[in-house]
Amino acid sequence: MIRWRHIYGTALRSYQSICESNVKQLSSCTMGDKFKLPSRYGAGEKSVWVEYIQLAMDYKPAVNLGQGFPDYPPPEHVTKSLAEIAVGDNCLLNQYTRGFGHPRLVQNLSKVYSPLINRQLDPLNEILVTSGAYEALFSSILGHVDVGDEVIVIEPFFDCYDFMIKSAGGVPKFIALKPKCLEGVQTSSNWVLDENELKSLFTNKTKMLILNTPHNPLGKVFTAQELQTIADLCIKHDVLCLSDEVYEWMVYEPNKHIRIATLPGMWDRTITVGSAGKTFSVTGWKIGWAYAPADLMRNLQVVHQNCVYTCCTPVQEAVARAFEYELGRRDSPDCFFVSLARELTAKRDYLSKMLQENGFNPTVPEGGYFIVADWTKLKDKIDLSSEPDQYRDYKFTKKFAKETGVLTIPPSAFYSQPHKHLGEDFARFCFIKKDENLALCEKLLKEWNAKKK
Amino acid sequence: MIRWRHIYGTALRSYQSICESNVKQLSSCTMGDKFKLPSRYGAGEKSVWVEYIQLAMDYKPAVNLGQGFPDYPPPEHVTKSLAEIAVGDNCLLNQYTRGFGHPRLVQNLSKVYSPLINRQLDPLNEILVTSGAYEALFSSILGHVDVGDEVIVIEPFFDCYDFMIKSAGGVPKFIALKPKCLEGVQTSSNWVLDENELKSLFTNKTKMLILNTPHNPLGKVFTAQELQTIADLCIKHDVLCLSDEVYEWMVYEPNKHIRIATLPGMWDRTITVGSAGKTFSVTGWKIGWAYAPADLMRNLQVVHQNCVYTCCTPVQEAVARAFEYELGRRDSPDCFFVSLARELTAKRDYLSKMLQENGFNPTVPEGGYFIVADWTKLKDKIDLSSEPDQYRDYKFTKKFAKETGVLTIPPSAFYSQPHKHLGEDFARFCFIKKDENLALCEKLLKEWNAKKK
Ligand SMILES: Cc1ncc(COP(=O)(O)O)c(C=O)c1O
Ligand SMILES: Cc1ncc(COP(=O)(O)O)c(C=O)c1O
Repeated sequence: MIRWRHIYGTALRSYQSICESNVKQLSSCTMGDKFKLPSRYGAGEKSVWVEYIQLAMDYKPAVNLGQGFPDYPPPEHVTKSLAEIAVGDNCLLNQYTRGFGHPRLVQNLSKVYSPLINRQLDPLNEILVTSGAYEALFSSILGHVDVGDEVIVIEPFFDCYDFMIKSAGGVPKFIALKPKCLEGVQTSSNWVLDENELKSLFTNKTKMLILNTPHNPLGKVFTAQELQTIADLCIKHDVLCLSDEVYEWMVYEPNKHIRIATLPGMWDRTITVGSAGKTFSVTGWKIGWAYAPADLMRNLQVVHQNCVYTCCTPVQEAVARAFEYELGRRDSPDCFFVSLARELTAKRDYLSKMLQENGFNPTVPEGGYFIVADWTKLKDKIDLSSEPDQYRDYKFTKKFAKETGVLTIPPSAFYSQPHKHLGEDFARFCFIKKDENLALCEKLLKEWNAKKK
Repeated sequence: MIRWRHIYGTALRSYQSICESNVKQLSSCTMGDKFKLPSRYGAGEKSVWVEYIQLAMDYKPAVNLGQGFPDYPPPEHVTKSLAEIAVGDNCLLNQYTRGFGHPRLVQNLSKVYSPLINRQLDPLNEILVTSGAYEALFSSILGHVDVGDEVIVIEPFFDCYDFMIKSAGGVPKFIALKPKCLEGVQTSSNWVLDENELKSLFTNKTKMLILNTPHNPLGKVFTAQELQTIADLCIKHDVLCLSDEVYEWMVYEPNKHIRIATLPGMWDRTITVGSAGKTFSVTGWKIGWAYAPADLMRNLQVVHQNCVYTCCTPVQEAVARAFEYELGRRDSPDCFFVSLARELTAKRDYLSKMLQENGFNPTVPEGGYFIVADWTKLKDKIDLSSEPDQYRDYKFTKKFAKETGVLTIPPSAFYSQPHKHLGEDFARFCFIKKDENLALCEKLLKEWNAKKK
């Protein structure tokens, strides 16, 4: 509470004005119904990110374990490249480049991924560079999902999938990962799909299935067998697989990241998405990509050309050079693709342990950089009645942030309306944070627990 | 021909393969009709930019006056900022920032524009930062145009307007600027709208009118009276005005840029779009913005949140600092907003003169950095029969590039299908190029003309 309280007065005022302005924004436009939001966007659902980033800015929590980004410097070679490019001799690197991807970047993406998917990726026709993985997801979904098409989405899911499907006129069909057993220490491998339920979702209207491995927020790394089940169904029903693999380099021993595009018969129907922000710990750079056969990519190119057309040149050049650098030390333990996972394993273990020691029941992740932790054993220690939110995890994360100074994210944001209750007992903690901040988190949790005895 | 010919062999081969792959891309997907492009994107029209940038990459013309970007360095303070930020102490500047716009950037945009529109712009609710002006246009159009809505578009137009309107389910209604008189030296003020024709386009389905001043490609700077005519009609018919003002700082004496949002009654119905790429001569940075009343902005926020969610943090910070720097010398002749126009006036005059001396009839622009020039007096000097394109300006610009080494853009790309003939007699030349390259252009044109005597 210490670090939180001194700004509580002004924070509360600005929080109230946010709530009011949200209400105002969601009500109809003063210019009258003529300028209301097109129906493809529903009511213009507010995003959990907009809300929680604003919270972070207003409250300035002592430790922000909310959004998924590192609070310590990215690899030096990565940021140094950008600096060199910005002021370098080739001034054209500050001007427009090829719309579907800066030549040096698509060449390097081909070099990185070709050996991983056992086929030569054509840099010009099988890769698209986008404004973050986010826009790669958008281009994939808007480029393939037509009005009335069904899309299978595995819950919990990165919240934009749902909005994007609906804005394309598609119909999301949700299936939740559920824990096999609820006792004792959980790992993300405990969370599984019911195969029969999954089968039952495939219809003649199914256009696409969205897979996310390693998974946000659970940290699940899908096994070969789980992927095969999904692949078999996609092939049987002639369905596309959109595979969101932005956490591909954050996989913890002994788990292995398997690209579903490499399963027999899957290349032809898989669009794989990656992120420079996640790969190089520069989430603010917003460069992502998708790769797939040229026939499937054509649809993404059209959407991309329609919405942003081309991405930031100096940042694309910097990402290209970053890949070149890592490819040059690919087999060294210093290669960032390897060292990052090593570094994160320790952070994961530290955060898991401290959560456990402080009344949470964490699901230890096999990949990604989030821990989903059950907070229900703490429910008698925290009075949520003052929080006006609808869902218990929203109430908990807000009140907990106010009392401890530790900001987390409510996982019900990652569920469809009818399944939001499945997320309500949890909070999502991000652990790509400097050890000093994880230690501060531990201190704050301990102090809070002590006070609540 | 000299500089072109030595790479002509390989270039021709790769040009053929581009044509073939375009044909292949436009034909249906090999995975069968199930994965065809959703109908909202039509046939997935190929963009003139994709085609001509590829041409530039394959042919490496001696002088590229095609795409609108400077071939000389941007202001040093601008690129230096980006370099400092990338490797600076605040490593969070490489991580996610606020989705609707980095705080320091929206604050500065408010400082820049508030005095220009005579009202205090609310940085958090009246401004959205986007992936280039391109995405600002996308968010404005997709956020307001619903299925069946009509949008009035002034021809020639920046080609993406049409695609975006159609992908929103809207119906573009075109009206062409036409020259008042065809004799002698043309200036862009000669190109005008027919007021009665404009009136006749407004119906009870009209949702939006798109204005572009200063105008690409004509360079027209709309006068107060012309804007008042448009404003009166928008108010009378309760229509939004989307005002694309990316060339706002490139206006040549004695012309003045007038923001239509400042006309009485127009603030409430105008969304104004700007571009850091154009403002600071860093087109590769792809940061843009829109500003409008909060009620209208809400729709843009929803679209933005749905497609890219947030923009590049270090680049936003650099643009913010660039604005701060220029605001600090706002009244000095060194302020880039003033010095750029001065510098470009000389380039405009030089290019106009050389075009006139070499058989073109240029329309001298009042703003922007393009010259549209009539090439028909040269038609007996150039054999277009070998060019397979449909429109004469495509044939001309391609053949002319091959023969002279000077690449330009065919303006028929900026017209709707039924009006493409209005652009066929012209080529668009960009003059934000270093003097050395403009001089090389002059030399190549002279040599070509001499040979063709
Ligand atoms: C699963 C998932 N996909 C996509 C993204 C977006 O990545 P980017 O920042 O590259 O747009 C995120 C970001 O958190 C994510 O968690
Ligand atoms: C009229 C017009 N609007 C918008 C844009 C796109 O600007 P940005 O590069 O900021 O996306 C351009 C670029 O050429 C343009 O000419």
